[in-house]
Amino acid sequence: MSAGTSQETPATARGGLFVTFEGIDGSGKSTQCRMLADTLRARGLDVVLTREPGGSDGAEEIRRLVLEGDPDRWSAETELLLFTAARRDHLERRILPALAAGQVVVCDRFADSTRMYQGLSRGDLRASVDQLHRLMIGHEPDLTILIDMDPAKGLARAKGRQGSEERFEDFGLDLQQRMRAGFLALAQEFANRFRVIDGDRPMDVVAQDVLDVVAAALPERDGDAGA
Amino acid sequence: MSAGTSQETPATARGGLFVTFEGIDGSGKSTQCRMLADTLRARGLDVVLTREPGGSDGAEEIRRLVLEGDPDRWSAETELLLFTAARRDHLERRILPALAAGQVVVCDRFADSTRMYQGLSRGDLRASVDQLHRLMIGHEPDLTILIDMDPAKGLARAKGRQGSEERFEDFGLDLQQRMRAGFLALAQEFANRFRVIDGDRPMDVVAQDVLDVVAAALPERDGDAGA
Repeated sequence: MSAGTSQETPATARGGLFVTFEGIDGSGKSTQCRMLADTLRARGLDVVLTREPGGSDGAEEIRRLVLEGDPDRWSAETELLLFTAARRDHLERRILPALAAGQVVVCDRFADSTRMYQGLSRGDLRASVDQLHRLMIGHEPDLTILIDMDPAKGLARAKGRQGSEERFEDFGLDLQQRMRAGFLALAQEFANRFRVIDGDRPMDVVAQDVLDVVAAALPERDGDAGA
Repeated sequence: MSAGTSQETPATARGGLFVTFEGIDGSGKSTQCRMLADTLRARGLDVVLTREPGGSDGAEEIRRLVLEGDPDRWSAETELLLFTAARRDHLERRILPALAAGQVVVCDRFADSTRMYQGLSRGDLRASVDQLHRLMIGHEPDLTILIDMDPAKGLARAKGRQGSEERFEDFGLDLQQRMRAGFLALAQEFANRFRVIDGDRPMDVVAQDVLDVVAAALPERDGDAGA
């Protein structure tokens, strides 16, 4: 890799698995991340549960720098560089060491969220997003689970969360619909690692589908972590 | 440009001039920056005197994030991304608007310092430095003045500064020599915009050479800003 990351040995070949979750707000993906981590741990697997933006000490500091203060304080390009710096730190300080140790990394959002959001707000930046990713990150998840959700239902669910009303008043149904379409387009673009799961069902049912998909992707082990 | 900067209209064609200073510690470049700005202002030119890393509100925040705390808290790659984010902010919030308004921008260090330092510490990163620059900065100075200095003399001068002893104890003569060689190599690589000026002379003599070089690069104006 041009910037020092290593992809010569896929994580799965070393025993680790890098699973990311994507989805619109209110899709339940954060809940599914936690449920998956709990289930895998109960089956004896070593799991790192993390999230972006952030996920390592340095990345959390960068996250605060980006998200606090005036929303217009950074341009789309500067914000992209800052989030890429945070991702690089998260990757090299937390994700790659865990994979090298054979752990399962479950991450709530990763580079696909950047691709989707930049595609929505600044479509002309998508090429830069991809080039920057290849140059400075150079690592994709082994498996990306898109929790797909009807935007109207997702919005209603998000609004129902305590304390979240204000945040979601800024978001409209139209934006949610465009986000969903953006994620579904990414699932087609990266069909080899994306799995789309219908999130509009009871969470235990969704969790079982998630577990089935992850179990199928887990490398062969002495123990049985499958469903 | 792929990331939204504009190079279609060179700064000089709009009346502005982007001048950067580079040089090893103790070369006197910061003093020369100030003297040049003062002289140009006395001649009626509108001058922005700035520096990197930093130079804009956001870039100064990123500078603090990078430079404060444990020196090992960021990898070379993450630090490169953070400095590039700071440069992008500085460029779009301060440098480009000033050039568009026909001002002269005098900047103490710019991308060449990044090239030189990364070349010294992590030579394998130089290609990434250049690709990242093309992708997200895409702008070079009209004129870069390298204040060249014998490293032993520069080190002695830097050590003579009040309060700077501790900082410079970490730096050896060998490092200063490699920095000088790195800057001289860049001056050859970018010979079209670099001018090398001998800094080992009285500062007024150096300042006159600097002014001559800048005056030759200034676009035609109604007033006469030449030496």
